[in-house]
Amino acid sequence: MDSLTGSQIIGQQLSDHGDEKYRATSAFSGEPMAPFFRNASEGEVDRAVCLARDASGFWATASPDVKSKFLRELAQRVNASRETLLNRASLETGYPEPRLTMELDRSLFQLGVFANLVEEGSWVDAIIDQRKANQAGPPQPDLRRMLRPVGPVGVFGASNFPFAISVIGNDVVSAWAAGCPVVVKGHPGHPGTCELLGRCVQDVIRSKNLPEGIFSLVQGTQNRVGEALVQHPSIRAIGFTGSLRGGKSLWALTQKRTEPIPFFAELGSLNPTLAFPAIFRRNTSDFTKNLLASLTIGNGQMCTRPGFVFYVKCRETEQWTQELLTAASLAPQQPLLNTSVASQFAEATEQYRVQLDARQIFPLQTKDEPKSEFDASPPSLHLYQVTAAEVLRCGAKWTEAFGPVCILVGCKDLEEMKAITNTLPGGLTLSLHADPAEQTLAAQWLSDWTAKFGRIVWNDFPTGVPIGNATQHGGPYPASFDGQGTSIGTRAIERFARPTCYQNFPETLLPPELQSDNPRHIWRQVDGRLTQDKLPH
Amino acid sequence: MDSLTGSQIIGQQLSDHGDEKYRATSAFSGEPMAPFFRNASEGEVDRAVCLARDASGFWATASPDVKSKFLRELAQRVNASRETLLNRASLETGYPEPRLTMELDRSLFQLGVFANLVEEGSWVDAIIDQRKANQAGPPQPDLRRMLRPVGPVGVFGASNFPFAISVIGNDVVSAWAAGCPVVVKGHPGHPGTCELLGRCVQDVIRSKNLPEGIFSLVQGTQNRVGEALVQHPSIRAIGFTGSLRGGKSLWALTQKRTEPIPFFAELGSLNPTLAFPAIFRRNTSDFTKNLLASLTIGNGQMCTRPGFVFYVKCRETEQWTQELLTAASLAPQQPLLNTSVASQFAEATEQYRVQLDARQIFPLQTKDEPKSEFDASPPSLHLYQVTAAEVLRCGAKWTEAFGPVCILVGCKDLEEMKAITNTLPGGLTLSLHADPAEQTLAAQWLSDWTAKFGRIVWNDFPTGVPIGNATQHGGPYPASFDGQGTSIGTRAIERFARPTCYQNFPETLLPPELQSDNPRHIWRQVDGRLTQDKLPH
Repeated sequence: MDSLTGSQIIGQQLSDHGDEKYRATSAFSGEPMAPFFRNASEGEVDRAVCLARDASGFWATASPDVKSKFLRELAQRVNASRETLLNRASLETGYPEPRLTMELDRSLFQLGVFANLVEEGSWVDAIIDQRKANQAGPPQPDLRRMLRPVGPVGVFGASNFPFAISVIGNDVVSAWAAGCPVVVKGHPGHPGTCELLGRCVQDVIRSKNLPEGIFSLVQGTQNRVGEALVQHPSIRAIGFTGSLRGGKSLWALTQKRTEPIPFFAELGSLNPTLAFPAIFRRNTSDFTKNLLASLTIGNGQMCTRPGFVFYVKCRETEQWTQELLTAASLAPQQPLLNTSVASQFAEATEQYRVQLDARQIFPLQTKDEPKSEFDASPPSLHLYQVTAAEVLRCGAKWTEAFGPVCILVGCKDLEEMKAITNTLPGGLTLSLHADPAEQTLAAQWLSDWTAKFGRIVWNDFPTGVPIGNATQHGGPYPASFDGQGTSIGTRAIERFARPTCYQNFPETLLPPELQSDNPRHIWRQVDGRLTQDKLPH
Repeated sequence: MDSLTGSQIIGQQLSDHGDEKYRATSAFSGEPMAPFFRNASEGEVDRAVCLARDASGFWATASPDVKSKFLRELAQRVNASRETLLNRASLETGYPEPRLTMELDRSLFQLGVFANLVEEGSWVDAIIDQRKANQAGPPQPDLRRMLRPVGPVGVFGASNFPFAISVIGNDVVSAWAAGCPVVVKGHPGHPGTCELLGRCVQDVIRSKNLPEGIFSLVQGTQNRVGEALVQHPSIRAIGFTGSLRGGKSLWALTQKRTEPIPFFAELGSLNPTLAFPAIFRRNTSDFTKNLLASLTIGNGQMCTRPGFVFYVKCRETEQWTQELLTAASLAPQQPLLNTSVASQFAEATEQYRVQLDARQIFPLQTKDEPKSEFDASPPSLHLYQVTAAEVLRCGAKWTEAFGPVCILVGCKDLEEMKAITNTLPGGLTLSLHADPAEQTLAAQWLSDWTAKFGRIVWNDFPTGVPIGNATQHGGPYPASFDGQGTSIGTRAIERFARPTCYQNFPETLLPPELQSDNPRHIWRQVDGRLTQDKLPH
């Protein structure tokens, strides 16, 4: 692989029209690193989207074989550059090597998952209602419906997953698999990693002679780059992972377009953890250890980090708090991702003090010590404590802090725990720790939880989101804008597809998925019955 | 059934707090009819939604048996009042009796379709990924995901379908089937029909001892009634069928809420019909007859009415135009739905003259005749003619006119037909009439059509939307806001549901659809494989 150029990747071109230059910062030295990157110009964004539009027809109708081979070869190509990628990602994020290796492997696995999904093919949700007589009027027509790609998709990568939620990440791969060309807006926190990944994609597209518009990468620190992308009339949907603030401002632009488009966002979550009384009456060492692990994995910069723990205050929970503090003092610590994350983290945790009246219990500060400028260097783990009564008195102003912080919320009794958790906003996950004897109580609360959260976790922790079929990584606002999609797992593909119905069509013009002979041997619903069979003649 | 009271139906109450009164107008005499209706007050809307919220938990977890019996009994109850309903609907819409009977029967059939869907149960799209070992880390959790109801839904009925897209119509029934309580905003064009239907629902809820909040009906002519509904914090989704203008203003309000909610709309469509050259070289009498039938069914007040016909001008198409005019002069004519529809129709057809430079060819006006005030009485069928070149020269400003009108667009050649149809906005349907020999050409154009339209029709006409499984009644903007849902057919249920994932859950707390024994015997995806089996122990 050539060295970094700081260019935009516009189809098969490297493009350098942008003006304002910037550099990535070393997470270790704090120094800016080569090369200079540029903010993509409006013309570059336009060209990327126009190429995507021009490639739409080809990619929408490309055979599953072409699509899956592209995804698999891309995994090989990225794997061949893994050392270069890991080195640059380490410099740009400060993540330790095992974390980055795990994430890179996850991304390669993710490419394979979607290659399999495309090859198997039943994801298109084919439904056939054959022509039938209708007593009351003319015969009902032959209707055949399947999911088809929406067209060019714009994707915004996340700061915290330089591989798995970025240039070859969940949104991009699911959009490609659906049959959509993608223009990625790289996250400015790791532009070098983005470029290296983008070059891999560019290589594979060239080597397989695919239309160049299937992929472009535009980069920049300025909002106008992303704004130009979401406002481009040929972009048909957006995939976004990031903050509520950033997501909301881009989402608002998509709703003001002449033609509004869907904006699929994953905007973070408070991930409340409820600990029912019985667990504190037994040995809590596993609970403590696993809570801390879930809280500090990826240095807490995870959308599913457990941000709040609710429990009923008693002698046992006082002891457990001490146990947690002891364990916290021994936990490994890492720097935050970058200075922007660090300052937002400082601001958000300060809000916990101001808005929730929460008391910092880790790290302990002596009373007279003046509060210093926030420092991203270890220790960054923060624990706060507050009573439910105080939170309710302050108006229950819930906000997320992105980083390793957890607020322990002591409740007077279960009734108060119910009252305070009912004030929580929508989210990705809610976790419950309980004894079997407490299932009856849990059953009473369950429908309030499922109304607000995408995933309910039983005696387990919310971090760790497998790329599976049953995965649900999304939830009601403010976790996302509609809560009806998932950004991780195979069902992520549905976001970038749209049902299309063919009425009384000749066989030769039908997509293979809807032809009577079912040449792809996929599962279809035929006259209300699921089957892999051909239609009867 | 008691006589009409003009009250709001708030759960089991009849409520009369609103101030500004109005009456429905007889479609035959133009005279206002008893009783006076009131615009629902803000308090009434609030109470309706709060009752819906309170009924959410019950209805979300009610057994399929309870839900389907409710739907079936409602069909019986409505059928028992059919004479009263048909009489009032006739007075309020002016539709002829066969049209109303057909629509009422369709609505009863629709209730049965969703009762069957709920009983069968596989619509919840259950997916189970069982716990499995993971070489790289801790074992992957047991994840089980299914669709669950979003919560209280607000529904706006349409003017043109007093039964099938109204108080017991597609949006309401699909939301109920999904497990959502519904608050309906009745269309002010037929408030009496709405009230009569609402009383049937109220009766069935009372007789079955169901929570009253499952259904309320608020009525009014003023925008503030609907605005209060879409802005209520406990409303979780909207179903809307109506005009782009009305839909867009309500949609904008949902996006400005503290918590935005999905707005599922069906906003109409131009429904272009393309006639390839070969069909004019054979006998066109069937084409002409069926086009006119599709154009005038329901007096053209159908979202799928073919609004534009595109063809390549030649001697044969000149002859065909004469044939169409002759047939049009013999076609049965009806009054438009109401004075509001009539004045909007006059305004919209006037735009065809002004914006597209189209020439009215039916009914023929003598040049000197002064253009009179628009009159809703027959004949209301209008035909216009224009060349593609003129439309393109005027900037291709496409607009829909709601009523019996069709614009014939003559193209110079196929290339010009392609150019002009590429300027069309998104829509519900596109229809193509072609000979088998023209399939190759159609194949080349097909991907441009599927990118914009929800349903592509081959040698058939777009009106007539069966309530099937493969039905797709939706499309890209401006047919709807996202094009990913359908408002008719069984898949309409998905709009009012949201995936929820249960991680490592005890069997007794799982919904039956996700329990290992599969007690409901539904189709589920288990570890990537579709099956109706239990999980292996």
